[in-house]
Amino acid sequence: MRLRRVPGIEKEFLNYPHLVIADNETQKGKWQQHFANENPVYLEVGMGRGQFLKAMSQSLPNANFIALELRDEVIFDAAQTLGDELKNVAVLRGNADSLDKWFAPQEVNRLYLNFSDPWPKKRHGKRRLTHENFLKQYKQILAKNGDVFFRTDVRQLMEFTLTEMTNNGFSLVDVSLDFHNSEFFDGITTEYEDKKSKHGPIYYGHFVLK
Amino acid sequence: MRLRRVPGIEKEFLNYPHLVIADNETQKGKWQQHFANENPVYLEVGMGRGQFLKAMSQSLPNANFIALELRDEVIFDAAQTLGDELKNVAVLRGNADSLDKWFAPQEVNRLYLNFSDPWPKKRHGKRRLTHENFLKQYKQILAKNGDVFFRTDVRQLMEFTLTEMTNNGFSLVDVSLDFHNSEFFDGITTEYEDKKSKHGPIYYGHFVLK
Repeated sequence: MRLRRVPGIEKEFLNYPHLVIADNETQKGKWQQHFANENPVYLEVGMGRGQFLKAMSQSLPNANFIALELRDEVIFDAAQTLGDELKNVAVLRGNADSLDKWFAPQEVNRLYLNFSDPWPKKRHGKRRLTHENFLKQYKQILAKNGDVFFRTDVRQLMEFTLTEMTNNGFSLVDVSLDFHNSEFFDGITTEYEDKKSKHGPIYYGHFVLK
Repeated sequence: MRLRRVPGIEKEFLNYPHLVIADNETQKGKWQQHFANENPVYLEVGMGRGQFLKAMSQSLPNANFIALELRDEVIFDAAQTLGDELKNVAVLRGNADSLDKWFAPQEVNRLYLNFSDPWPKKRHGKRRLTHENFLKQYKQILAKNGDVFFRTDVRQLMEFTLTEMTNNGFSLVDVSLDFHNSEFFDGITTEYEDKKSKHGPIYYGHFVLK
């Protein structure tokens, strides 16, 4: 997703103090405290423009939603979509390379991986968010029987993900090769998904930590 | 596949004595003896019109190919395709419900499941050849690290198969959601596949017994 560079963007975050949490490690192991409840913690890695996060957090008010996002422009853009009225949402400015810095073991109950970069070249395979190296991190922070919900429009990434996850500690609970025409689809989408689903199938996988 | 009823068809099998083995249990544990070699045994469950079996047996002359088929008309039809010059092919007239009657434990090195009946209704799920109950049988007759090669044009059967197999003792080695445009496709097809691949993707899964 390309967004224009916004001058002085860090200052803009000050307008969303309840929403955007700066890049630090102080929340690790304390996310339920942050939300002041004992609800489960659901993490979206990469957040797009915030449409999915907003709808999900409204649909499931008894869960705490955190979006992890590195790029300031994306956060800024999504923050405007999210507003500051959602009590069960936080945006964490950080890198997916080091999830164990932001979350304690078993602190996360669900992971959402929506339309992540397919990195189509084989030599870039390690950068895919369902590469074994990332899965190792997910296993560290996911609770027992924690879920991973995966979506993509890229066939090759779906194939890679099915093989990689089922061979590295995750069970396949449900899969759809045409998600929008399946029993699993609840109408909640990302902005990117709205565009792509007009031109081909959306692939979906629900995995659970073994 | 619908084929006309052929009067006196059992007698026709007498024309293919090296090829068609009548419904009995005498070969169990003795398939390599039957072929008079020590080559691996590859089993196709359901054989269509024989095109796949013929091409595979020619492509891999150092393997013994057996097709399991219940319907006389199908056998008769395929036998004409196969002829009687293929030394590494046998057709076993029998039911996939009781593979352990025809094969000793670990006697089979590969299974091919090509375009089997999708049984789309949920209440018929047990009839699908990748239902857990069938997988139990495959596990009995497959050698250690034995392979299952699966193809279908039916999305729902592919989804079912991915879930069922990876949750019941098989690892996913390779998967393609567009087999004919994948690195795994070697040009060998069934007759049905030739028709169906013009209208949509062929799904492919390669599984291995854990």
